[in-house]
Order: sequence, then C-alpha cells, then structure tokens
Amino acid sequence: MSGARARQAIRKKQHTGPTATLAPGFVQANLVVVPQADAADMRSLCARNPVPCPLLEELTAGSHRSRLAGGSDVRVDLSGYRLWRDGELVERASDAKAWWRGDLVTFLIGCSFTFESALSEAGLPPRHATCGVNVPMYRTAIPLAPAGKLRGHMIVSMRPYRAGDLERVRDLTRPFVEAHGEPVAWGYQNGLGIRDLSRPDEGDPVPFEPEEIPVFWGCGVTPQQVAIESRLPFVITHEPGHMFVTDLRHADLKRGRR
Amino acid sequence: MSGARARQAIRKKQHTGPTATLAPGFVQANLVVVPQADAADMRSLCARNPVPCPLLEELTAGSHRSRLAGGSDVRVDLSGYRLWRDGELVERASDAKAWWRGDLVTFLIGCSFTFESALSEAGLPPRHATCGVNVPMYRTAIPLAPAGKLRGHMIVSMRPYRAGDLERVRDLTRPFVEAHGEPVAWGYQNGLGIRDLSRPDEGDPVPFEPEEIPVFWGCGVTPQQVAIESRLPFVITHEPGHMFVTDLRHADLKRGRR
Repeated sequence: MSGARARQAIRKKQHTGPTATLAPGFVQANLVVVPQADAADMRSLCARNPVPCPLLEELTAGSHRSRLAGGSDVRVDLSGYRLWRDGELVERASDAKAWWRGDLVTFLIGCSFTFESALSEAGLPPRHATCGVNVPMYRTAIPLAPAGKLRGHMIVSMRPYRAGDLERVRDLTRPFVEAHGEPVAWGYQNGLGIRDLSRPDEGDPVPFEPEEIPVFWGCGVTPQQVAIESRLPFVITHEPGHMFVTDLRHADLKRGRR
Repeated sequence: MSGARARQAIRKKQHTGPTATLAPGFVQANLVVVPQADAADMRSLCARNPVPCPLLEELTAGSHRSRLAGGSDVRVDLSGYRLWRDGELVERASDAKAWWRGDLVTFLIGCSFTFESALSEAGLPPRHATCGVNVPMYRTAIPLAPAGKLRGHMIVSMRPYRAGDLERVRDLTRPFVEAHGEPVAWGYQNGLGIRDLSRPDEGDPVPFEPEEIPVFWGCGVTPQQVAIESRLPFVITHEPGHMFVTDLRHADLKRGRR
C-alpha cells in the first residue's frame, strides 16, 4: 500500500487504527498544530532540539496541505486527533475539521518508524514490533534548549539490543538525521534519570533477553508534550500511534537527500 | 577596525592577544580542525547539538581558506593554536603551518561575542566585559547527543542578570541562532549540575549584584572539548579567546540571513 492509498483509507474511515504497519516503506510523521502566535517558538524549539524534534515540514498558517503528501489534508488524513487547551485534553475526534482556524500552523515531525525499518531490514527488528506492542517511551531528566514559551525535557523511546550489536545499531540509524538518527544513550549508566524501565511513561514495557542492554533514541512525541506542558492555549496533536503517512520514502530522510 | 584588518594584524604578529575587543561588529568564530576520518562525526555532532555547536562553516579537506573571510588562511589568521593528540595537549604555536596536512577539515563554530554585542547595545553589557575578565564557563551534566566517536557534555557560559531583565535578555539573544541563540537555563534550580559558580571550569568568576541570577548559554568551546575528551588522535584548536575574525556582521547570524 502506498502513502496515498493509506491516507485515502484513513480519510474514508476504512482504516481507523494505529498506522505502524500501514504503507511500509513510506515515511510517517508526528503532527503538532499551534496558533500562529506560538509558531515561532515551535519552529525554534525544533531548530534547537533537532534530535527529538526533527522538523520535516512547517505548513503556512491556515494551510492543511502538506508538500510531502500529494492531495493531502492534515485535518482528515490522520485517524485520530486530540485537542488541548492550556495543557488539558479537552476533546478527541476522528478528524480535526471542526477545530480548524485560519491561523493554525501545522508542524510535521520525523518518526522512529523510519529507522526501525532499517533495523528490521538488517535483521535487528525492535522488540516491541516482534511482540506486537507499542514502543516504550520515557520522560528523561535531560532539559531541552528552551524556545520562548516552550520548555520541557526530552522524551526517549527504548529498544533492547545485545551490547555486541550496539555499534551496528548506531551505524544503521545514524544516517536518518530527519528521523532522530543514532541513539542518544544506551546501557544503565545513561544519565537519563529513568527510574524503572518496566514502567514506561507511554507505550508498553518490553522484555529483555540475555546480554541485552537498553538503547534510547530521541522521540517525536517530545514537541507535542512540550507544547502541552508549556500550557499553550490551543494545541492539536494526533492520537498516539495514529501518524500522518507521507509520500516520502525512508531513504529520503537521510542527510542531504531532500 | 574591519575583520580583514584584524586578520592582517594577527598574521603580521602585530596583534598577539585575545580578540574580544578586536573588530567590533564582526563575527568571530571558534576553530576545530580534525582529520577527514573524523570529520563526519564532527559534522554530525554539530548538526545534532546546534545550540552549543552552531556550525558556521565546514571547509573542504585540506583547505585553509574560509568563505566567510576574504583572503583568509585559518592556519595563520588566529593568534594562538593548540595541538592535541589522543586527548593530550602536545604543542602550542602562534601559527598552525607546521602541523598542517592535506586531510585536515576545519570547522568554524559561532561565538558568544555576537549576542554579547546585542546585549551591550541594549544597555545590558555582560558582567565579565565590564570587569575586563574572561567569561566564566562551566561543564554541565547535560549529555550531548552522541555522534559516532564523539560523546560529551554541554559546556555553558554564564552572565549574571537581574531576574526582571531575563525576558528581555532572552528576546535580545534569541534571534542569533548561529551564535547559541537564547539561554539554555537560568536561576539556581537550573538542572545543569554546576556545583559552585565561583569556581568556573574555564574563564574567570564574576561578581553578582543584588537581585541578579545566573543566566547560562551554550558555549562554543563544547565541540573542541568533546573532540579532546573523545580522544581523537589529532585535533587543532585555538588558544581560548584567540578567535578567528570573519567578514560577517553579527546580524548575519540571525535566522535566515545567509
């Protein structure tokens, strides 16, 4: 299934669930929508923290058409949306049309599906994928570089790998600079301040096999979490796992490819 | 004095000291030179950590001419150089010609003089400038996003400001995205892990006046410190404070200006 077909299926409500296994090979993106008054801060947050917040595209104010996806409409091309006011979740919906305003600016952020695809192709599939659960995510003690009103901490996703595979895992994921790139930390002395790997802040815990260590990557839910925690008056995000499917191929997110 | 004149004076050994007060208005840069084998990691370190490591220019391998400075030669246009092997300082010199090799890649990194100029013009001169000492710098507990062989922690510079001036200080420095931009932290609950402000790791301590709090910015010595601590086999840096003076104006380092 192509990215275009996936968006069509979602728009027609033929596909209503998470998108992880939809349109393999095509880049998926996290969505954060803020009023124009907060857009400069969001742009700056991404520029200053590109590892957790790799900005794929910023749409012009009011626009709902992404250049990364032909004929797209970011108000209806995802299967679940959340509306936040002053840091509180106030509404959920299967499309964002009723909430749309002419001053809204959409940010599309790279997603780990891109580097996971490279890991799987190399025979190193992430544990949560083989277990059929969501990737475990953790809040860390690592402060982001603040940007105007936006302040917060890095969120990471975690995948167990054998210590002997670490350098290969780093090498495989490093090229995907617009999708978090190589890991930010690994092992147990990782400086992230995570208390208990078996209790992720989002997603599901995953089992470790002998000789495996935790490997952590910057996570694309970071900018939406920062927007919420910074209590912006109006923020639209997607339901976790219900991503925006683009027409880009994963290799397009390597350095200098676009 | 223009940037070109400053470089000429340094090249002729007419100016041999720090460059802080030389050629006001012109952008100065930190210098890190590594062999081509380590250049991809340095490039990636800067891309992943743009706040402490804002990359102004990467020269092609072997080149000593910067596009940011007419007729320049980075081997002789600074007034002091250091050579590091495997993390150890092995030699100091007033030019780097004797150390030069065809495989060396020069990285020029933005410097705080740019935003300090904006602060001074707004009537908020940094304390170290009015005291005539070097800016205090501190190693922090904030891990950088690793890049291949390169791993380390953010180094910050600190300037005291009144809490009531903080938002103005943030606003004034935010636009200079290629020179560290707005502060990364402020106050005493800053999460940086600095034990004693009166004992900086580099530079000089500065006095606080009543109602002032410490304000911290990412510091451009970070990438050279990371190269050294990561024990790269061969690294050239400048003597602290002896920067590369370019032909750029400070306003050129605002977002989108070049």
